[in-house]
Amino acid sequence: MQSRKYVYLFNEGSAEMRDLLGGKGAGLAEMTSLGLPVPPGFTITTEACNEYSNERKELPAGLEEQIEDALRSLEKKVGKTLGDLKNPLLLSVRSGARISMPGMMDTVLNLGLNDKTVQALAAATGNERFALDCYRRFIQMFSDIVLYVEFNRFEEVLEKFKARFRVQYDHKLQPEHLKEIIAEYKEIVRSRTRSDFPQDPMNQLKKAVMAVFESWNNPRAKVYRRLNKIPDDLGTAVNVQVMVFGNMGENSGTGVAFTRDPATGENVLFGEYLINAQGEDVVAGIRTPQPISKLQEEMPEAYDQFQKTCSLLEKHYRDLQDIEFTVEEGKLYILQTRSGKRTATAAVKAAVDMVKEGLISKEEAVLRVDPDQLNQVLHKRLDTKVQFQVLATGLPASPGAASGMITFDANEAERLGEDGEKVILVRLETTPDDIHGLVMAQGVLTSRGGMTSHAAVVARGMGKPCVCGCEALNIDYKEKKITVGEQEIKEGELITIDGSTGQVILGEVPLVSPELGEELQRLLTWADEIRRLGVFTNADTPADVRRAREFGAEGVGLCRTEHMFMAQDRLPIAQAMIMAKTQEERDEALEKLLPMQQEDFYGILKAMDGLPTTIRLLDPPLHEFLPNIEDLSLEIMKLKLTGGESGEISRLENILRKARALQELNPMLGHRGCRLGITTPEIYAMQVRAIVQATAQLKEEGLNPNPEIMIPLVMSIQELKILRELCLEVIQQVEGETGLKLEIPIGTMIELPRACLLADQIGKIADFFSFGTNDLTQTTFGFSRDDAEGKFIPQYIEKKILADNPFAVLDRDGVGKLVKMGVELGRSTNPELVVGICGEHGGDPSSVEFCHSVGLNYVSCSPYRVPIARLAAAQAALRLK
Amino acid sequence: MQSRKYVYLFNEGSAEMRDLLGGKGAGLAEMTSLGLPVPPGFTITTEACNEYSNERKELPAGLEEQIEDALRSLEKKVGKTLGDLKNPLLLSVRSGARISMPGMMDTVLNLGLNDKTVQALAAATGNERFALDCYRRFIQMFSDIVLYVEFNRFEEVLEKFKARFRVQYDHKLQPEHLKEIIAEYKEIVRSRTRSDFPQDPMNQLKKAVMAVFESWNNPRAKVYRRLNKIPDDLGTAVNVQVMVFGNMGENSGTGVAFTRDPATGENVLFGEYLINAQGEDVVAGIRTPQPISKLQEEMPEAYDQFQKTCSLLEKHYRDLQDIEFTVEEGKLYILQTRSGKRTATAAVKAAVDMVKEGLISKEEAVLRVDPDQLNQVLHKRLDTKVQFQVLATGLPASPGAASGMITFDANEAERLGEDGEKVILVRLETTPDDIHGLVMAQGVLTSRGGMTSHAAVVARGMGKPCVCGCEALNIDYKEKKITVGEQEIKEGELITIDGSTGQVILGEVPLVSPELGEELQRLLTWADEIRRLGVFTNADTPADVRRAREFGAEGVGLCRTEHMFMAQDRLPIAQAMIMAKTQEERDEALEKLLPMQQEDFYGILKAMDGLPTTIRLLDPPLHEFLPNIEDLSLEIMKLKLTGGESGEISRLENILRKARALQELNPMLGHRGCRLGITTPEIYAMQVRAIVQATAQLKEEGLNPNPEIMIPLVMSIQELKILRELCLEVIQQVEGETGLKLEIPIGTMIELPRACLLADQIGKIADFFSFGTNDLTQTTFGFSRDDAEGKFIPQYIEKKILADNPFAVLDRDGVGKLVKMGVELGRSTNPELVVGICGEHGGDPSSVEFCHSVGLNYVSCSPYRVPIARLAAAQAALRLK
Repeated sequence: MQSRKYVYLFNEGSAEMRDLLGGKGAGLAEMTSLGLPVPPGFTITTEACNEYSNERKELPAGLEEQIEDALRSLEKKVGKTLGDLKNPLLLSVRSGARISMPGMMDTVLNLGLNDKTVQALAAATGNERFALDCYRRFIQMFSDIVLYVEFNRFEEVLEKFKARFRVQYDHKLQPEHLKEIIAEYKEIVRSRTRSDFPQDPMNQLKKAVMAVFESWNNPRAKVYRRLNKIPDDLGTAVNVQVMVFGNMGENSGTGVAFTRDPATGENVLFGEYLINAQGEDVVAGIRTPQPISKLQEEMPEAYDQFQKTCSLLEKHYRDLQDIEFTVEEGKLYILQTRSGKRTATAAVKAAVDMVKEGLISKEEAVLRVDPDQLNQVLHKRLDTKVQFQVLATGLPASPGAASGMITFDANEAERLGEDGEKVILVRLETTPDDIHGLVMAQGVLTSRGGMTSHAAVVARGMGKPCVCGCEALNIDYKEKKITVGEQEIKEGELITIDGSTGQVILGEVPLVSPELGEELQRLLTWADEIRRLGVFTNADTPADVRRAREFGAEGVGLCRTEHMFMAQDRLPIAQAMIMAKTQEERDEALEKLLPMQQEDFYGILKAMDGLPTTIRLLDPPLHEFLPNIEDLSLEIMKLKLTGGESGEISRLENILRKARALQELNPMLGHRGCRLGITTPEIYAMQVRAIVQATAQLKEEGLNPNPEIMIPLVMSIQELKILRELCLEVIQQVEGETGLKLEIPIGTMIELPRACLLADQIGKIADFFSFGTNDLTQTTFGFSRDDAEGKFIPQYIEKKILADNPFAVLDRDGVGKLVKMGVELGRSTNPELVVGICGEHGGDPSSVEFCHSVGLNYVSCSPYRVPIARLAAAQAALRLK
Repeated sequence: MQSRKYVYLFNEGSAEMRDLLGGKGAGLAEMTSLGLPVPPGFTITTEACNEYSNERKELPAGLEEQIEDALRSLEKKVGKTLGDLKNPLLLSVRSGARISMPGMMDTVLNLGLNDKTVQALAAATGNERFALDCYRRFIQMFSDIVLYVEFNRFEEVLEKFKARFRVQYDHKLQPEHLKEIIAEYKEIVRSRTRSDFPQDPMNQLKKAVMAVFESWNNPRAKVYRRLNKIPDDLGTAVNVQVMVFGNMGENSGTGVAFTRDPATGENVLFGEYLINAQGEDVVAGIRTPQPISKLQEEMPEAYDQFQKTCSLLEKHYRDLQDIEFTVEEGKLYILQTRSGKRTATAAVKAAVDMVKEGLISKEEAVLRVDPDQLNQVLHKRLDTKVQFQVLATGLPASPGAASGMITFDANEAERLGEDGEKVILVRLETTPDDIHGLVMAQGVLTSRGGMTSHAAVVARGMGKPCVCGCEALNIDYKEKKITVGEQEIKEGELITIDGSTGQVILGEVPLVSPELGEELQRLLTWADEIRRLGVFTNADTPADVRRAREFGAEGVGLCRTEHMFMAQDRLPIAQAMIMAKTQEERDEALEKLLPMQQEDFYGILKAMDGLPTTIRLLDPPLHEFLPNIEDLSLEIMKLKLTGGESGEISRLENILRKARALQELNPMLGHRGCRLGITTPEIYAMQVRAIVQATAQLKEEGLNPNPEIMIPLVMSIQELKILRELCLEVIQQVEGETGLKLEIPIGTMIELPRACLLADQIGKIADFFSFGTNDLTQTTFGFSRDDAEGKFIPQYIEKKILADNPFAVLDRDGVGKLVKMGVELGRSTNPELVVGICGEHGGDPSSVEFCHSVGLNYVSCSPYRVPIARLAAAQAALRLK
């Protein structure tokens, strides 16, 4: 039986074979066919990985033979042979999944070395130090990755010898030092694995391939996939490639560069390199590397060739590239190219610039920027009007500013973050094992590592502020403190970092809100030309409304009115209204609230002048306006036991009685929303009057207010009918009083399953529907958001019961089915029905795409998410034709 | 333009024209065509009533002319003329809707009398007392019904004169007395209405017809319709009929009788009559009437004719009839026949007997009994093993026994009942205005009135115990006490009444549960032959299981396991399990719970031997097993302020901390159901092991246990998959340990909208679905049952937003749509899927019908509802083809 083809030589593949060969393999193949200086090699497919995982961790039949055949072909091409005692071939074995997962899976370099070939390599290159350095690195890496010996055991030995030999950097170690280190390394392997370090190069290769397959399922790779929503069944390819050496001396080196600045998007080559080093030295942030521009001075020819290659690759791929290279004794090799991760600013600028340069179309530009990533640009920055003293400055690795408590440990950062504390994770450098701490931190600060270090890359990906390579900081994990000169800063103290400038500041600095830059404005204008969905905002104050308008909101989709009762000067009146014993007392309190509400609506309608402004009538249960029962009980008991004043006790007891009468076991499903309007119509009547009077007032001032009245939590047409009539009556009264004609649409939130199921009935008398997907998600899943998000949803995501938090990303299967039903039924009886969404999902790109697909008229989201929604809506229009 | 036909002479109608002529009108027409002695008359249609209501309360065009024509026809037939001064015609004007609403709407008798015709009547009949009595009655009734003068004003006058003339009963009043009374009556009318009592008979007739139309919408009729789910748009017909007089002397009388005993169903004529009285005297319970058997002695001829008529009518209508008659000077007239209201016992016995008698088929018998009414038969009775002293004995008017606090006022009864207090409403007699109090009372006790009095009829309809006509009781509303001989009993004291024997007992008597009688057994056996739905039970204890089996349950559809943790000896262990700081501590507690749970399941499975027994794994959130947070806080503060013991304080603080950590804002939507199984699998594993070990134990004893494991609150296939695997693992372990092969189906509750929407996925790996319609109703409506039922649902029903409480009667439009979807989707991927329902709706006849219509396999309900469900299922099978 002929086995499946598992192995592709680089010249057999292409960029299109990404699924099979992984991103790295496809890139190497593509570059090979472009004639670029790629060391020869072959790729073992992702299919082989998946079969390995499925078949009880055995290599699929035929794979070993195919690897051997490919190896022979390599050997022939380069004139070296694996394990040869004269001219030994060395290989790199690197992972490479379809979607880049930087640093998450494993790599083995310098494979093929053993006690004998190391001597052959020394002889063949005439560079014993180089050969021994390679062997030292190989033992360390192979033992870590393949034999599961802790990496730190080797690092400790290395540090010990560096100290003993008074050597600061690895590359200063001399052959005799390296020999001693290697001997001790091998001893570690012997004692940990109870056998000698493997000497057979073919066996090394086979084991390394299996180890890379295994690394697909290591814990940090799983976490990364969960965070980045990468399916678990893709598998990784393995790239086996002839080694080239950046560590052959001062005329060798290795580096990483982006074809444009990944932080700003500026069209300049941006990167770093290290002389006399191997690839992992740059990424790991062990030595602080040199900026790429310096390569021009040190190796002008190699730099020139590299620059041309970068330009060629960017044009070829029509996107910003992230390119790894090695210079071996002056000769340039390209080891990898991939689409470069970038900040939102960079993504926007690069996309807009590329349109200007004629490289891509406007539509492509719109598709190039991840809407979620825009969150970054919309991040806060330091308030420059405030004086603050900069403690130290590092590299501006990921933009945005953040404040938080200093924490030195990822677990601690996670714990505090889950408790709702704001923390800044401070590390010498981060590793993929810190990822759970990064997730929960406000930002990251490291004292080592460059702009392409792990911390920088991951923080940029997450849109969190990061300052790295801040070498002025002396971080002491043990004493849990940072020393900067004379100054000591302890764990738990507050600091602020600014990832756009690299500044680190002691204490908390006020932050200011962002504005849209010129490029983003342009990109969003293109998006506006493309999208069919309207983008509204959820805003409750004139300030929010103005901000949202600046960000391009075309209306207010949800103006909540409950906060208006919560203000300090109003809460006592609202409480008096609730505590009222007679209708007169209640009316009196409402009478006082009316002008206040009117003022609120006046401000909001004025700020949104000319655009639709959807105002939701009171939604929460009335007990939310009363004090907490437990607190009240305790207060009363305390007063009683300590001889408190009896008038006060009886006042509190009165409130307690009312609070108990209103208390609910499940307030989410309680006496709230339109149920209040039905049972206490005077509250809604007051609110409607306030809206209508504010509208009349603005009209009289010559403005163009466009309020719409929204009834929450409707489950039947009867509710809406009663409340619609109540609204119309008040509107007519005010029309009568003012002589104005006021057209105010009246619609409803659709936020209960029953409302979706009966939307054909409800639609008959609604001017609009607005899907309240927060509550609809709660009722469809039977999840109380307050209780579920902190408690079992994280476990549900971990166990893959849920792909996402359904309160962040709309659940298309369940909630989405109801939304679709609601839209279709509603329009079946009312073809003119305007339909929007005002749950928080309105600002989530995947949910926006769904809203587009079911034909909503608009999405509504928080002001800061308006630009994201505009872009996402355009992408949805492009993707779903 | 020819107007619609609004008026039908009795000989123009028939029994089939019930919608148009109302029940009474159709009956009169039918009896007329049968040749029975019905006084001639005509019926004004329900359409006329509806047009009157719709057309701003004006009689529809043409109606007056049609009434006049019909009247002329009557006059011709009887040779009397309305308003004639020699031979005046008198009329009765009576309401009559399609569905009988006894006593709810209005009637006017003796219409046509005025100051002159009363003299003519006296002359024509030679009976001045009779004529004056008629006029006295007419003024009183007409003024009450048509002129809205309070009835009591007249009663006061009547009582005053009766006292002055030392007369006990109305019919002992002499002409001179009556003249004085009439004079004072007219004076009342003059002072209240500012005009004289209307003298024009035609005008009287027109006004009376309008008043009857109006009475369709009087408050008590509306309440009655709401309670009995009668549509508001049916309208009432008006029957205008020539008066015959039961008050013409000692050879006259009036009465009501049932063709069979409406309490027991026994095939004997059952009824009451009053000599020298008009119809309303019997129903109002003013004089205690004579049993019908006595009529045989007093008026043998009339009795004989009446008995034959009854027999004829029952055969003709093939159902138990409730017949009103009047004897005028020895001549029998039939005034009404209708299907007789009866107790459940009577309904069952009559239906079964009629099958035996060859009158109806088994299917008809099954359709004859209202399943809801069976609740009565399944009512409790006094425990005869207990000694108790009977205070007094009245008429056994509605079966079943009940205890409660004495309350003399319907409003108070309602208020206390809503507060959850048990009350017995005690009245001299009840009127339709007391209906709201009757609804909330456990039972009714009156000192006046017979078996057909208002209290008796209404209580039987509601299935509440009623003792009436208990004349030994001296009820004093003012002093709020009852005096019996020497004994005084005050408001608020406890009494017990037994509506099956008429006994009234001071204090609370233990009650025992009912058994099915022989006739009901037979009827249910017929029902079982007809129905296609299985009937299971919800039962958590062996006692409940046994009871349900006796009542015909074919399996357990829901065995809840949470109560098992609540028992006094187990709660501390359950709490230790929850408070466990380590896995070991938790395992230790679970280890202790295992044998207890196993014993529980052993008992239940043994009791249900051979039948499927569906056990639901733990459902409520864990904090339900911990003390209340407020109580704990108060206890701690108290201990602290009063120098309590520090060890105890710290113990309580520990519990408080845990309770706070587990506290939820909306427990209904919280960390419960299968979510517990996912996050704390060891609890479910323990429960499953207990089930499986109990099963193995019973099998080894040679029994045939049939457990099924049910996973609650599933919202996705992934949850069910994980928990199904957990179950299977435990089953396999126990199989390995015991060597037995155990086939245990594993299914899930479908109680969240998302589970219905994704039932096609979930169905793939479920052996059965059981719709948990309680929770499904909560989430579909967004109603927390605990919060909604007491608070806004009653208002929603009153405002007709809801037709029924959706927790009692399944909401077909919303929840039903999801259930249907769930069934269809589930079976689409798993045609073998067994589907049932285990919400409380399983015992509600309307919901059972729905379950039949969507093709469920079974319903499951509380043990006492099993017979109801069996009957309802058979009726559904008969009704829906």
